Amino acid sequence: MNKVSAEGINTLSGGATAALGFEAAGVSCGIRNSRRDLALLFSSKPCVAAAVFTRNVVKGAPLGVTREAVNNGGVRAVVVNSGNANAATGEQGVADAHKMQALAASALGVSASEVAVASTGVIGVHLPMQRISSGIAEASSNLSRGSEGFANAILTTDTKTKEASVQFEIDGKTVTIGGTAKGSGMIHPNMGTMLAFMTTDAFVDKDCLQQALSEATDRTFNRITVDGDTSPSDMAILLANGEADNDPLTLDSPFYKAFSEAVESVARDLAKQIARDGEGATRLVEVVVEGAASEQAAAALAKSVVGSNLVKAAVFGEDANWGRVVTALGYSGVEFDPATLDLSFGSVKVFAHGEPVAHDETEANAALKGDEVLITARFSEGDSFAAAWGCDLTYKYVEINGSYRT
Amino acid sequence: MNKVSAEGINTLSGGATAALGFEAAGVSCGIRNSRRDLALLFSSKPCVAAAVFTRNVVKGAPLGVTREAVNNGGVRAVVVNSGNANAATGEQGVADAHKMQALAASALGVSASEVAVASTGVIGVHLPMQRISSGIAEASSNLSRGSEGFANAILTTDTKTKEASVQFEIDGKTVTIGGTAKGSGMIHPNMGTMLAFMTTDAFVDKDCLQQALSEATDRTFNRITVDGDTSPSDMAILLANGEADNDPLTLDSPFYKAFSEAVESVARDLAKQIARDGEGATRLVEVVVEGAASEQAAAALAKSVVGSNLVKAAVFGEDANWGRVVTALGYSGVEFDPATLDLSFGSVKVFAHGEPVAHDETEANAALKGDEVLITARFSEGDSFAAAWGCDLTYKYVEINGSYRT
Repeated sequence: MNKVSAEGINTLSGGATAALGFEAAGVSCGIRNSRRDLALLFSSKPCVAAAVFTRNVVKGAPLGVTREAVNNGGVRAVVVNSGNANAATGEQGVADAHKMQALAASALGVSASEVAVASTGVIGVHLPMQRISSGIAEASSNLSRGSEGFANAILTTDTKTKEASVQFEIDGKTVTIGGTAKGSGMIHPNMGTMLAFMTTDAFVDKDCLQQALSEATDRTFNRITVDGDTSPSDMAILLANGEADNDPLTLDSPFYKAFSEAVESVARDLAKQIARDGEGATRLVEVVVEGAASEQAAAALAKSVVGSNLVKAAVFGEDANWGRVVTALGYSGVEFDPATLDLSFGSVKVFAHGEPVAHDETEANAALKGDEVLITARFSEGDSFAAAWGCDLTYKYVEINGSYRT
Repeated sequence: MNKVSAEGINTLSGGATAALGFEAAGVSCGIRNSRRDLALLFSSKPCVAAAVFTRNVVKGAPLGVTREAVNNGGVRAVVVNSGNANAATGEQGVADAHKMQALAASALGVSASEVAVASTGVIGVHLPMQRISSGIAEASSNLSRGSEGFANAILTTDTKTKEASVQFEIDGKTVTIGGTAKGSGMIHPNMGTMLAFMTTDAFVDKDCLQQALSEATDRTFNRITVDGDTSPSDMAILLANGEADNDPLTLDSPFYKAFSEAVESVARDLAKQIARDGEGATRLVEVVVEGAASEQAAAALAKSVVGSNLVKAAVFGEDANWGRVVTALGYSGVEFDPATLDLSFGSVKVFAHGEPVAHDETEANAALKGDEVLITARFSEGDSFAAAWGCDLTYKYVEINGSYRT
């Protein structure tokens, strides 16, 4: 497994409020019975904001509202509800998303264009605006430096909250980056296919922030899959409020690389938490592809394996069925010479130079028994590599998605 | 559901030996314990042959051997084993496929280039050639006009044999087209992703035969999915021996359309049988897309829905969860205006002009309780349409693929 932290980047225990100047709250307003379902995130100072959105043609109403706010610049607050995606809800849905933005802005004393909006849950049902309204009122008067309520209120079928944060130095100033995410089903690499709210106290310009987020998304959120279904609702947001008081970071800055690596490490940590908590999952699957012609090719190969129902079912069954891995590499859309392929489960090599390798099957199956399963494919097409993350396919996944509406 | 037969095309009850001059056999040679596992198909007269092959980069050894034979022209026999795919088996695998071809040719008294070879089953294990050899000897001395043994011997995790045949007239001559297929897991539209052996007694030229098969494959075998996994082993073959004594069919012939429609109806029947017998499936799902900008776009939209794990699990759960259908349409890769979309489960409209339609949920769920489920999506992008077929995602699918190696 990859280590979350790179050199000089220290992991912390917090989430979206780990960075200076951010507060959050999560309350229950009755959308999801007695569970928390409304969340607010707020920066005491104005922010620079970056965002990425789902590539699904059908987009939830909040995405247009949030995109506009981020494009205008200066988003410093996020309001989120779970239990209802406000997607496929027509013109009423767009009006509701605007209303939700305005309510949060008013409660926080900022302008509407400073508030990003997100919704996740059932598709095709109009938002209960009365409940949203009372939830926003309650949350705005309960903001604190803790992030657990926020992390909890954005969950749907997730079984665990997902938080990550790191600290590193920019020219002597300590900078913190933290984030919170949700996602368990309808998860497939195409933007982020989940919600992620990341914050930093770094002083960063907008282009730099957007590029760091886009690059990190491509390498982390876009490399996880639970079920191949890309949601219409999902987005990742990164807010930077400059409280760390560092010299301004730009794309030309010598510290850009450290900053983008730190963003990527938080995003990777959150992405792996989502994959591990995939609906019904019992284990995290990491597929590493090495020796590909390009990073794009390596990512496509890795994602094809991690997305294969047959591979996922074999991992559940603790069966080192490498034929299914070879097959999934073969239909990834990437051309390669099968005669150069090596394949390992954990440290057990099962296939080399396009031929089966005699191996102890019990030992290979044992590599699938842990909490984390590593599958490595090595090609001789170039020197690019990539990792992708997913989970196993279990009876529980079918139960969750076949037994009641989520 | 679409009717299998078009005007003037009558369905019969036979399979790959329904057409005049074809014989077949299926025997047990010990690859799959006591089940039949070796099959032969033979035409008493020379044939014209057409074939399509998997697009998986990793191809089973038999595919190269068969492609060469079909390109040479004149394939009149097919030898198939189940229980072992002879894929990812390196150079030894290619040598074994050639040996299998030569053994069948010798037993049938024809030249090696007149024999197509196919293997299906476990990936990455060398063929037991001694057993293959004795199986070919036994099968070649048991050829008959019946096709049940053949249809049975090519199965793997299938629970049912799959046969279809039709009869129609070309200028006063009766022409028969029949076929047999296998496929239950590792099924996803990309060529055929299964084995299909079709025969006809029509007198047809090679270009005409290949085009009819390619067109039919695009509209039938390439429109089914069980699990999104494209197998390295799969192919569809169509042999024509001319026994019907019709005037030669060419692409310019006025009867080409009737012939290609007849080929398509046999292929569609076999494709739907495969989808219905998908691993663990309890029902056939047909998704019809209308009003698309092109047939290609319609097919991509339909295939995206039929391939969605979340839609498949909802069908299993008899939950008319149309939000998942809208979502799958949205990530199909096809651009469309969501505001023009109408959606029905059976005859119950659940979404119109991009807005939810008030409907009786019990009635909508009832549309999912039968053996066959119809989901219709109507766009206003053009006048093209397409259907795709799949099955539900069940506990049994996970059991089959998580519990033991297939």
